[in-house]
Amino acid sequence: MKPDSGVRRASVPTAVDVARRAGVSQSAVSRVFTKGASCSARTRKAVLEAAAELGYRPNLLARSLITRRSGLVAVAMGYLENQFYPSMLQALADRLGEAGYRILAFNAADGAADPVLEDVLRYHAEAVVLASARLSSALVEECRTAGVPIVLINRKTRNSAVSSVTGDNVKGGSEIAGFLVAGLHQRFAYIAGIEDASTSRDRERGYFGYFADHNMAPPARVVGSYSFEGAMTATRDLLGRKERPDAIFCANDHMALAALQVARHEFNLEVPRDLSIVGFDDVELAHWPGFDLTTYSQPVKPMAEKAVRILLRLIEDPSSSRSNAVVPGELILRSSARRPKTGILCIDGRETWSSGSAK
Amino acid sequence: MKPDSGVRRASVPTAVDVARRAGVSQSAVSRVFTKGASCSARTRKAVLEAAAELGYRPNLLARSLITRRSGLVAVAMGYLENQFYPSMLQALADRLGEAGYRILAFNAADGAADPVLEDVLRYHAEAVVLASARLSSALVEECRTAGVPIVLINRKTRNSAVSSVTGDNVKGGSEIAGFLVAGLHQRFAYIAGIEDASTSRDRERGYFGYFADHNMAPPARVVGSYSFEGAMTATRDLLGRKERPDAIFCANDHMALAALQVARHEFNLEVPRDLSIVGFDDVELAHWPGFDLTTYSQPVKPMAEKAVRILLRLIEDPSSSRSNAVVPGELILRSSARRPKTGILCIDGRETWSSGSAK
Repeated sequence: MKPDSGVRRASVPTAVDVARRAGVSQSAVSRVFTKGASCSARTRKAVLEAAAELGYRPNLLARSLITRRSGLVAVAMGYLENQFYPSMLQALADRLGEAGYRILAFNAADGAADPVLEDVLRYHAEAVVLASARLSSALVEECRTAGVPIVLINRKTRNSAVSSVTGDNVKGGSEIAGFLVAGLHQRFAYIAGIEDASTSRDRERGYFGYFADHNMAPPARVVGSYSFEGAMTATRDLLGRKERPDAIFCANDHMALAALQVARHEFNLEVPRDLSIVGFDDVELAHWPGFDLTTYSQPVKPMAEKAVRILLRLIEDPSSSRSNAVVPGELILRSSARRPKTGILCIDGRETWSSGSAK
Repeated sequence: MKPDSGVRRASVPTAVDVARRAGVSQSAVSRVFTKGASCSARTRKAVLEAAAELGYRPNLLARSLITRRSGLVAVAMGYLENQFYPSMLQALADRLGEAGYRILAFNAADGAADPVLEDVLRYHAEAVVLASARLSSALVEECRTAGVPIVLINRKTRNSAVSSVTGDNVKGGSEIAGFLVAGLHQRFAYIAGIEDASTSRDRERGYFGYFADHNMAPPARVVGSYSFEGAMTATRDLLGRKERPDAIFCANDHMALAALQVARHEFNLEVPRDLSIVGFDDVELAHWPGFDLTTYSQPVKPMAEKAVRILLRLIEDPSSSRSNAVVPGELILRSSARRPKTGILCIDGRETWSSGSAK
């Protein structure tokens, strides 16, 4: 490695060059390129013209040493095989880009080394976004301790002082239960995600809560750990039972797609005649014709939008209060689950279901 | 925005603190934390101990101003709805992480603003990886002009001075043609990707070349532009024709999955009895039981590995020669295409086909 290999950029113009050409002081140049700093319209015009002529690029790294503003947001990414996460990454890149931030990507895949906080501090990332069901909660606490704003997407911690953006997990789980009961199913099951993930716990709470509230026996429960293979195994377990379920709620779409394929291709079941399957997320794949999955939506763009808004507020004022935003979703009816006779609503071409209108 | 909001980290220990505690000069501290710089074993030990005691983190941003080594690689990401790209992003994050680099992610989605080069220079990214079929070729030339090492993945430019890593596109296209001809299909078609993408051009060249070399009529040709919707429309066009094709090669799996579903769900065709469909990539989805897609593989991990190796060499020595690496793939037989009577090979449990063994 040659530390001086950067010499090839030695002729890049500096703020001194711009100041000289514009006939202003170097600090005037600096003010023009600093958000929120003031300068006269005339100075501004002269500096911008000189900068354009010289091809000057304000050195964000150098500035970050003074202002501590790097313009970077660390985003932990992982579980990209679940289409929800690449979609979220894309939406975050769009929103953060609009706000003038770049993404410093961290690998939060299974088994990846986890020196995230070290590098967050090293690169002066201004905030951290965790959009991975699998990342250690320890990191969350470390960031809090280090004073780095952090926003969780699609997860939360028991510590309400950490900001989060989630879908409406408890309500979604409960509505799915009501929908399946109204559809006159008789043997209910649940395929859980990672057992200590808040999403899986909350969806399970909503789903099982409905049965408890209606004095019905709790659904059968197996664990798919949010993986495709795990969900295949869990589905084989359920469908091999003597008392085979006729309705399975899977804690996310990624697992529901696995369940659907095991039911069709290994057990030769017809969906939804023999078995109803419902997921959670409404990923793109859910409306592919080969799946046409009934699911509860977690709208990616509004969730990304909300997360970036929270994050900008925390960067602006690290002492501002945390928020735990819940972005509403809705039950989206497609053909993977038998429908109740009543309560079907058609809104803007989408079909949903309401227990209220079923009464 | 408060430029001084970074004050919360004002108590972070500096190199001066470490030098004082270790009883050495500040430049000695700097040398200990600079790759390739020399210092005595005793100094090194004293500095590392003092750094550990104080919780000192060498400031990579500050150092990059001197050494121009930021430890960042800019990765342009986009087209994440095609599972090949999230898989590649994950593989790149793994390999780059092992080499001590972090990813500065750029949004190369359709319609995204494209100030990539500006920020590459601003953040002193040491190299650029383009893993998006859709990014403008202008950027490639800009990076070259600016002297920033650049590696293209799954695309190349006509300018052979730019390094690239691709699958074996021409050979793959040709083998698919031979395989479909040996399978006694009669009406061949091709669904092209983005027409000026090198991948689509090269696969088309291999596929059409086979027919030309064997004095056969060229396949029917429609354009799917690498999008799911585009491929659905293209498939409807082909399957609605009087002379309906009985074999379609789609320029990637993402489009082949669209074609497969249109054939089944809109035209009620049985695959492969009525129609054979072959893709290119071998994404995870290709071996889901509901698809079981015959395809030509582009192995993601070896491609990422190769790209990172090229990139490290270019960072080390920007004047080193460019390389255009072709990572071999193979035809992977599944159930979406009718098989020839001969030439089937079983290798490590995978089935492939060889025109050689068919003779």
